[in-house]
Amino acid sequence: MRIKSFRSVVKNYRAVFFDAFGVLKNHKGLIPQIEKTFEYLEQKGIYYYVLTNDSSRSPEELARWYQEKGLKYITTDKILSSGMLAMEYFKTKISNGNAVAYLGTKDSAHYIETVGLKTIPVAEVDLNYLDEIESFAFLDDEGFNWNDDINKTVNLLRKKNMTVVVANTDINYPVSKNDISVAVGSLADMVEKIIGKNFIRFGKPDAQMFLLAYERALQDTQLRRNEILMVGDTLYTDIIGGNKFGLDTALVLSGNTLPEMANIKISSSGIIPTYVCNSAIVE
Amino acid sequence: MRIKSFRSVVKNYRAVFFDAFGVLKNHKGLIPQIEKTFEYLEQKGIYYYVLTNDSSRSPEELARWYQEKGLKYITTDKILSSGMLAMEYFKTKISNGNAVAYLGTKDSAHYIETVGLKTIPVAEVDLNYLDEIESFAFLDDEGFNWNDDINKTVNLLRKKNMTVVVANTDINYPVSKNDISVAVGSLADMVEKIIGKNFIRFGKPDAQMFLLAYERALQDTQLRRNEILMVGDTLYTDIIGGNKFGLDTALVLSGNTLPEMANIKISSSGIIPTYVCNSAIVE
Amino acid sequence: MRIKSFRSVVKNYRAVFFDAFGVLKNHKGLIPQIEKTFEYLEQKGIYYYVLTNDSSRSPEELARWYQEKGLKYITTDKILSSGMLAMEYFKTKISNGNAVAYLGTKDSAHYIETVGLKTIPVAEVDLNYLDEIESFAFLDDEGFNWNDDINKTVNLLRKKNMTVVVANTDINYPVSKNDISVAVGSLADMVEKIIGKNFIRFGKPDAQMFLLAYERALQDTQLRRNEILMVGDTLYTDIIGGNKFGLDTALVLSGNTLPEMANIKISSSGIIPTYVCNSAIVE
Amino acid sequence: MRIKSFRSVVKNYRAVFFDAFGVLKNHKGLIPQIEKTFEYLEQKGIYYYVLTNDSSRSPEELARWYQEKGLKYITTDKILSSGMLAMEYFKTKISNGNAVAYLGTKDSAHYIETVGLKTIPVAEVDLNYLDEIESFAFLDDEGFNWNDDINKTVNLLRKKNMTVVVANTDINYPVSKNDISVAVGSLADMVEKIIGKNFIRFGKPDAQMFLLAYERALQDTQLRRNEILMVGDTLYTDIIGGNKFGLDTALVLSGNTLPEMANIKISSSGIIPTYVCNSAIVE
Repeated sequence: MRIKSFRSVVKNYRAVFFDAFGVLKNHKGLIPQIEKTFEYLEQKGIYYYVLTNDSSRSPEELARWYQEKGLKYITTDKILSSGMLAMEYFKTKISNGNAVAYLGTKDSAHYIETVGLKTIPVAEVDLNYLDEIESFAFLDDEGFNWNDDINKTVNLLRKKNMTVVVANTDINYPVSKNDISVAVGSLADMVEKIIGKNFIRFGKPDAQMFLLAYERALQDTQLRRNEILMVGDTLYTDIIGGNKFGLDTALVLSGNTLPEMANIKISSSGIIPTYVCNSAIVE
Repeated sequence: MRIKSFRSVVKNYRAVFFDAFGVLKNHKGLIPQIEKTFEYLEQKGIYYYVLTNDSSRSPEELARWYQEKGLKYITTDKILSSGMLAMEYFKTKISNGNAVAYLGTKDSAHYIETVGLKTIPVAEVDLNYLDEIESFAFLDDEGFNWNDDINKTVNLLRKKNMTVVVANTDINYPVSKNDISVAVGSLADMVEKIIGKNFIRFGKPDAQMFLLAYERALQDTQLRRNEILMVGDTLYTDIIGGNKFGLDTALVLSGNTLPEMANIKISSSGIIPTYVCNSAIVE
Repeated sequence: MRIKSFRSVVKNYRAVFFDAFGVLKNHKGLIPQIEKTFEYLEQKGIYYYVLTNDSSRSPEELARWYQEKGLKYITTDKILSSGMLAMEYFKTKISNGNAVAYLGTKDSAHYIETVGLKTIPVAEVDLNYLDEIESFAFLDDEGFNWNDDINKTVNLLRKKNMTVVVANTDINYPVSKNDISVAVGSLADMVEKIIGKNFIRFGKPDAQMFLLAYERALQDTQLRRNEILMVGDTLYTDIIGGNKFGLDTALVLSGNTLPEMANIKISSSGIIPTYVCNSAIVE
Repeated sequence: MRIKSFRSVVKNYRAVFFDAFGVLKNHKGLIPQIEKTFEYLEQKGIYYYVLTNDSSRSPEELARWYQEKGLKYITTDKILSSGMLAMEYFKTKISNGNAVAYLGTKDSAHYIETVGLKTIPVAEVDLNYLDEIESFAFLDDEGFNWNDDINKTVNLLRKKNMTVVVANTDINYPVSKNDISVAVGSLADMVEKIIGKNFIRFGKPDAQMFLLAYERALQDTQLRRNEILMVGDTLYTDIIGGNKFGLDTALVLSGNTLPEMANIKISSSGIIPTYVCNSAIVE
């Protein structure tokens, strides 16, 4: 597959959906020169949004990170996260006064609480008094003791039948140049298999994530799906999800798809991006 | 779970999404008295739509079946099928002049051709000249010789890397009171595992199917998701999909969830409908 | 399926293979009156062995538990564990001076060390000096910090390609009347999926576990497989494994297959024991 | 991994287990010069056996193929097939007068009949009279109409609970330089998923296949497992299975593991052969 310059690709679209990790940032911080891309998009009047499988923080907190790094373009309203889908789900479904038990950090739960819902970390659940616990959320891999709290989760979900939401479907995430960490999606997969139930999952490649971003874009302007470019570094989430939703897709080689492996990964996976670019930087 | 009358449930919604098989019809034909439901909905001004994992026929043909059985309410514009999503996908993605190879009946392909696309049954593909074949579709389990054409499909997809669309994700379907048939979704799963690639799938429980119906409903009236009731007989497609999309859901016991098994299936699956009703008949 | 008395069944065999948990013992200790069974077997000259998916302790320690409870019949030579298969594997495969890294308790590793092998808990591995680490073992779910050590395991196995052994394939185990615990087999499944490699697994239903017991029995007497009865409480390990190895099988209802669910589990799983008995007690 | 000459490797063992396809033969016939290997083994007094996941023909017929090609060394007693395990299973388990229904050729069933068992192709089964059908076998992908007979199999297995045996676990097999064919193992996987039951599978990498060969070897001479070399072209069956059974293993690059891909496949799969050789030819 021939590599195209990102400028030559992006100029033909009216809006761009960006994946965050591997596209705009990496383990060291912002990808150098990425601000040029947003200067270009602003100048051309092309809309842009960030789609992220992240339920560990609120859109406000996610945006603050970009602001602090000096990328002023990424504001709260530009961010669409799988955590927002989980929050929206609970807002509609949880009865008044009831609570959502969760695995994750206090921060990850705080976001759900902003709409008036009660949350309770699994560690604090009383297994003998579950009347108020109406649902369960896998929010983050941090903030709890895996040995104790995963076992307690298994037994909680065996004791009371409730809907379980996985707010981030990723199975791992990078923590340094070479190292990765188990993501909450993997912990959820393990618990689901042990108890034999069916969880609800939010996050790319699922269509609901793309729908969330599309609905946000429609608030800004009238546009059809084929006027949108999805930009990502991962075939299995960004590209196949974008393709299926009817978007054009650009695979960038600045993240977990290495340049020397791109062609072999495309042909072995059968996931074919519309374009391949070295990075999302408009040079 | 307490069983409620369908009338007492449906009256609180502004629109209803119906699954077809096991809800409106079964192997013998229309479910007796189901027309009463639509008389009631019409009288109350409640909108209704049919969501079906069926890619074997066009919405026109699917509607014609109801018309011929005397259920005049189900017209083409009420029908949303996974085949429509496949067709929409190909319309956006296939380059001018190129063709979609397929497994299925001529009828199932005919629908894709109505938007000007070329299709070719696998049996007629020349494996030595694949330049024009741009994509592949699993449309129907009938209309071809499984021995020859599934093997040919495997080798076609090994010879040329292309996007593969599965237009019906069901793994089986009922053909009589006791018997079922392998659905095209199972054939696709088998081929995908053999060649190790990633196919694109359309159909409940995937969010894109619910989005299609929601967008159609929005053309008729302004409404929020929680004003819609999804009615189905299958926990693993209709109910979990509806729940996840933010709809309220009613499990009916007139199809493949037997009354005596409903409670055990709900508790063992962890998929919890908002309501359980004996059938979708308004009595 | 008609329930038979265990006495009427067992009297026709020359040897018996017993699963341990749910058959000989449960969370409270020995199953009451189980000693009668062994008195009967001794009197009749029927050989007996215990097959257990347990890699947390050596056969000596496993036997000591029965001795301390007063069941003198279960001696070290009667016990065949999946841990023995792991130990045997490492004994043959690990080069002189090299070490096996592991997740588990010191006790679980101690057993491997009895044949002169070096072991090192993951927590103590230096990821920058892996020359001596030749293989990896999942031994027990206890004895380590899941947060830190599972993440470290993932990165260790990404840094150096080595054979990974899962010494207990169970995905959970009972800890009280109602509660279960995540077993090391589940942790191994999660890590295997994240790193995309293929682990070697020991334990029922795998044939190698039955072979180990059969070879032990052959040291005691000459007998054919169809002269052996496998007795277990779990269709998915004891019964399907025994059936496949050519043994007759007895499902007992004193463990995780509840009497009221036995028929439905047999017909829904397609795993058919030769006999069903209330327990393994000879009354 | 350094490539070694097969001669330098094999000379250190007392017995060799050979995979057939990709090692001794390919789609064109015998691999040229493979007879030299057997001349060498005979001269050195090294025992040899062929382990094949083939249930389409009896050992006699499999051996005849080698004889007709001029490789006189491969006689019936040298061949161990997954079909033999299926046959052995039915011989022990099927009650007098009862029958095994099957998918496959008449030839594949004929082999089972040689021990006095009755077989009946699915096409001839009367679904209203199943009293005599005691078990089911997936024997071969040929010899029947997939459309009709796979659907009939699904409904047969829903109507009557019986043990199902898959006599060849391969998911595909090569039919020419570039083309493959769906193997009966794939058809069995599809049916198993649709009906939700648990089948019994025979064939590499399962330990029972290696046990069969080891027991045969023990009839010829006294030897320990680590005196045996398993030679195969497939990491996922021959090599991981051999490793787990305690054999040393040699991956040969004359079959489906291409020389340029060997290192990447070993490191991505985590399946590590003891040796890598270009072929099994002793030059």
